[in-house]
Amino acid sequence: MVNETPHTCSATSSSKSDGGSSSGSESSKDSSRCSTPVLDADRHERLREKMRRRQDSGDKWFSLEFFPPRTANAAVNLISRFDRMGAGGPLFIDVTWHPAGDPGSDKETSSMIIANTAVNYCGLETILHMTCCNQTKDDITGHLQKAKRLGLKNIMALRGDPVGEEWEEEVDGFNHAVDLVKHIRNEFDDYFDICVAGYPKGHPEAESYEADLRHLKEKVFAGADFIITQLFFRSETFLKFMKDCQAIGITCPIIPGIFPIQGYHSLRQLVKLSKLEVPQEIKDVIEPIKDNDAAIRNYGVELAVSMCRELLDSGMVHGLHFYTLNREVATTEVLKRLGIWKEDPRRPLPWAVSAHPKRRVEDVRPIFWASRPKSYIYRTQEWDDFPNGRWGNSSSPAFGELKDYYLFYLKSKSPREELLKMWGEELTGEESVFEVFTCYITGEPNKNGYKVTCMPWNDDPLATETNLLKEQLEKVNRRGILTINSQPNINGKPSTDPVVGWGPSGGYVFQKAYLEFFTSSEIVTALLKVLKKYELRVNYHIVNVKGQNITNAPDLQPNAVTWGIFPGREIIQPTVVDPVSFLSWKDEAFALWIEQWAKLYEEESPSRMIIQYIHDNYYLVNLVDNDFPLENCLWQVVDDTFELLN
Amino acid sequence: MVNETPHTCSATSSSKSDGGSSSGSESSKDSSRCSTPVLDADRHERLREKMRRRQDSGDKWFSLEFFPPRTANAAVNLISRFDRMGAGGPLFIDVTWHPAGDPGSDKETSSMIIANTAVNYCGLETILHMTCCNQTKDDITGHLQKAKRLGLKNIMALRGDPVGEEWEEEVDGFNHAVDLVKHIRNEFDDYFDICVAGYPKGHPEAESYEADLRHLKEKVFAGADFIITQLFFRSETFLKFMKDCQAIGITCPIIPGIFPIQGYHSLRQLVKLSKLEVPQEIKDVIEPIKDNDAAIRNYGVELAVSMCRELLDSGMVHGLHFYTLNREVATTEVLKRLGIWKEDPRRPLPWAVSAHPKRRVEDVRPIFWASRPKSYIYRTQEWDDFPNGRWGNSSSPAFGELKDYYLFYLKSKSPREELLKMWGEELTGEESVFEVFTCYITGEPNKNGYKVTCMPWNDDPLATETNLLKEQLEKVNRRGILTINSQPNINGKPSTDPVVGWGPSGGYVFQKAYLEFFTSSEIVTALLKVLKKYELRVNYHIVNVKGQNITNAPDLQPNAVTWGIFPGREIIQPTVVDPVSFLSWKDEAFALWIEQWAKLYEEESPSRMIIQYIHDNYYLVNLVDNDFPLENCLWQVVDDTFELLN
Repeated sequence: MVNETPHTCSATSSSKSDGGSSSGSESSKDSSRCSTPVLDADRHERLREKMRRRQDSGDKWFSLEFFPPRTANAAVNLISRFDRMGAGGPLFIDVTWHPAGDPGSDKETSSMIIANTAVNYCGLETILHMTCCNQTKDDITGHLQKAKRLGLKNIMALRGDPVGEEWEEEVDGFNHAVDLVKHIRNEFDDYFDICVAGYPKGHPEAESYEADLRHLKEKVFAGADFIITQLFFRSETFLKFMKDCQAIGITCPIIPGIFPIQGYHSLRQLVKLSKLEVPQEIKDVIEPIKDNDAAIRNYGVELAVSMCRELLDSGMVHGLHFYTLNREVATTEVLKRLGIWKEDPRRPLPWAVSAHPKRRVEDVRPIFWASRPKSYIYRTQEWDDFPNGRWGNSSSPAFGELKDYYLFYLKSKSPREELLKMWGEELTGEESVFEVFTCYITGEPNKNGYKVTCMPWNDDPLATETNLLKEQLEKVNRRGILTINSQPNINGKPSTDPVVGWGPSGGYVFQKAYLEFFTSSEIVTALLKVLKKYELRVNYHIVNVKGQNITNAPDLQPNAVTWGIFPGREIIQPTVVDPVSFLSWKDEAFALWIEQWAKLYEEESPSRMIIQYIHDNYYLVNLVDNDFPLENCLWQVVDDTFELLN
Repeated sequence: MVNETPHTCSATSSSKSDGGSSSGSESSKDSSRCSTPVLDADRHERLREKMRRRQDSGDKWFSLEFFPPRTANAAVNLISRFDRMGAGGPLFIDVTWHPAGDPGSDKETSSMIIANTAVNYCGLETILHMTCCNQTKDDITGHLQKAKRLGLKNIMALRGDPVGEEWEEEVDGFNHAVDLVKHIRNEFDDYFDICVAGYPKGHPEAESYEADLRHLKEKVFAGADFIITQLFFRSETFLKFMKDCQAIGITCPIIPGIFPIQGYHSLRQLVKLSKLEVPQEIKDVIEPIKDNDAAIRNYGVELAVSMCRELLDSGMVHGLHFYTLNREVATTEVLKRLGIWKEDPRRPLPWAVSAHPKRRVEDVRPIFWASRPKSYIYRTQEWDDFPNGRWGNSSSPAFGELKDYYLFYLKSKSPREELLKMWGEELTGEESVFEVFTCYITGEPNKNGYKVTCMPWNDDPLATETNLLKEQLEKVNRRGILTINSQPNINGKPSTDPVVGWGPSGGYVFQKAYLEFFTSSEIVTALLKVLKKYELRVNYHIVNVKGQNITNAPDLQPNAVTWGIFPGREIIQPTVVDPVSFLSWKDEAFALWIEQWAKLYEEESPSRMIIQYIHDNYYLVNLVDNDFPLENCLWQVVDDTFELLN
């Protein structure tokens, strides 16, 4: 955008006003919206267009393949992996389809739900695999409809492995991937981007390599948008395949599938399934070290890096697809060594944008869910639209109920035993709770020697930005101001700032200081006296579990606490303190004391009763310092409160 | 708001979200909107509520009465007077009803249209008088419906003077003001606030003072909200009347009508019409000086000030109503001496807010019409709603056509002869046009010794804010960069700043530097070369009369150039550079060359041809410096351009 050349356009009529933006009708519809400026072209582009744009700009990319895990716990871990590997900037991820595992169901481990999570909760462009053999047309249509409903926009159309040895083609059935491609185009027109599989050595069941190429061409001509290949071991294999494809008129993108060898057994397994032959020179290296996992992985990384370099250097390859086997280390290492792992500290917005088409226009959220973005998306998933980047003209719609809590991705990543070590096998009083909060802030081990790396309100260690406030946070947590969310004030830092920056470059970001905490009613009483002095400089909302609510906000309007100013844009204000949502958040915040902490202990046990007491009697407080250009006064407010109590 | 005490409210249910704001359903509907925070309680309050609030807070107020003028030119002047006297902060103005002058028509001098202009173009709370005798029910309903449609919300219900000497009551007709009050309440429920007239000395036609008080009580009990009295000459008259009203159970506000004596003849005229007797002590002073207008006015001011002081000191009077006779000086003088003229440099928004209920939510406008706000309101009056404070989710609606131009309030205030003196009886070339622009900026007389106090694009002398840029503006206008709109950059000045501040106190306001001008194609060519260096720091739109449009804006999104951050509020961004509206503005801006300037000269005359040449060949340019925290680079851009040309 920086080097954009001026373009000349002739205005047809002054009263004509339907935009004319280049990215189609949906984008021009948005062009005059007030509060939802389009931050990033990516948010509006189809996958095939993104691919084309990256190819045109010469910007190499990668993608990552995952399979659905078997257990709910493994799913929680996989999703953390999506978040971490998503940080490297894959163009997309894809999720395989396991016909035996009820892949279209609502189970937390189904292909459908894992892909849904990737799109909607992790904000990743996602391809859902789908196989067609041995399935009815209605089943397949049902799966596709569900995928569309969930916001999935890309399908990898596969035949799948036939069940039984003696498979026979069904008349009018789905016998080949091309039937699925045709079906998708017939029933869903151009809605989905469709990917198909290519076999650099020919499909093992094909009559010949040439016959297989002809099958591939059929799939493309039936409506596939691009091809991802089966794995291969030599770059020449792929490059020859690509030239052969082009020779018979296949012009769509062909993406090489890369398999970094990560272990002896996984290699054998994969080779067996794919009926590929491992080249002798690789076997010669691996066999002698087959029991040394680290050695094999190092070799696998070396091999993948050099093969990928050859592919990229050929000038014919623009993107690389990685078969991760749900593992992180080898693929990340390869990507970093190739220089295409792009961990960009800059974010389009201060929070992760959902990739669901319906939520594209979302550009403002309440600050309360800052550490629980998946919970926020889950609880607002029923909202029909986000006309102001949030909610409609009338009133904010209802948040999803707290029963939805039990959903796997709202659980803590850590098992009970670990949580007990962090948060205390036995609590002796409110002070032992204060200590847990303090250890989480400082990063120091607790009295039993364990580090507290998560809290019920925050599944991850302290954010870099919060580190700026560490010293003060430690002090106040020790004394029973149990902080769960905070941000410093920022008065116009560049949008490229590595810690607090977000949005396009050339902009400036701002914040009002924010502090949110649980505390006792004694402290609240003193705090209220102190807050009087600060008048409207500090806005506060104070509420207990019963909903008794004390505030000096003159009405129910939201207070913008994060905003950004950009070249050629309207103001973007992605984070607000919204009094109405605060009451929904309050229910969630108090429930976390019980659901995640109290329930670690036996009923009627003293530890459980301590947490229950806090839940029943403490207040949840949020404070905003409106005077963002001055020094944050919230610490002074807290100091004054402690002083008043002494 | 600063001393607002905390209020406790019990949250009933977290999923309930319909606000709970105190000012009724319309207000709570707005409470969760994203981009249209309510700046000012006034914008949502009914007149009677404003009155009550001012009474409760002990904040004295005033209101002003005007009558519709006879000619269109007088109407243009009256509207300028509305703007100037509106600056003093009247609680409302009212416009009298002249049955003989077709008061409900669309004529530019009708009561209806003058009141419409006051509400919608001057942003003043307005009461429209309406009389009922000798009119049919249908006529009256028609007038009321029209008033409602135009956004008028307050009616002064009067009987009016019967036609002819021998007036007889009509059966089932409108014989008394009380009939009109009842009719309004029957047909329009509680939509209008209704005012009725009170007679401190009794109505001249009433049987007795007591009988007249009973009539007044009837009017109030039929649904009137408050009373404005006929003029009187002694404070005791009013205070006795008020006590008598209260004694018989009239509890609504009673506002004394104040008539500052401004001249001998107008006093006689008024006294004759109202059948009042002028006290001897006043006659004794006036008769000897009856030919000395200044002396009479000074005496009138003295008299009014001392009577108003007595009224206010009584503790019974909270507001004063002034019969201005469409004059400015005496009333303004009285108000200033009483200390209730409140010229508040602070504005709720940087532009005058229209008081039309439909436009309440409007909080953003294109910068182009900054000096022509009435034109902007006129050209957008057909827009159905302002869901984002401007326009809907789809695309900006069409601006009204330029033929509407000829409407009286879009004309220049100055007569042709004056314009010729300012802009030149005879132009000798483009340079003489440059000189006119330069003189307007500097305030120095032109070569014929006349000051240039207005331009086709700006009916008023240079704004205080623009004065900040005077030196640079002078330099560039001399060289053919003919500026018509500009603002300096502002990086977080207090919202109470007397020059650039707006909005509630405790906030901070910001601006991006802006410069808009006409210039030749030679300068544009050089400018474009220079602008390349500035990349996205400077956004530009350059267009000629044919609509050839050159821009570096990446899409059709608006660029916010004025915004404010306030305690407990979302960001407010009232002014934008909007590429779509720029093309509508362009038509208007180019048309002004011809309509206001070229047409001053004979057809085919050299002067006219010079303006026509500029109209046909110059470009309209706007520049925004996005880097608001740095020093404004737009002057550097212009300097570089001139240097390149040398």
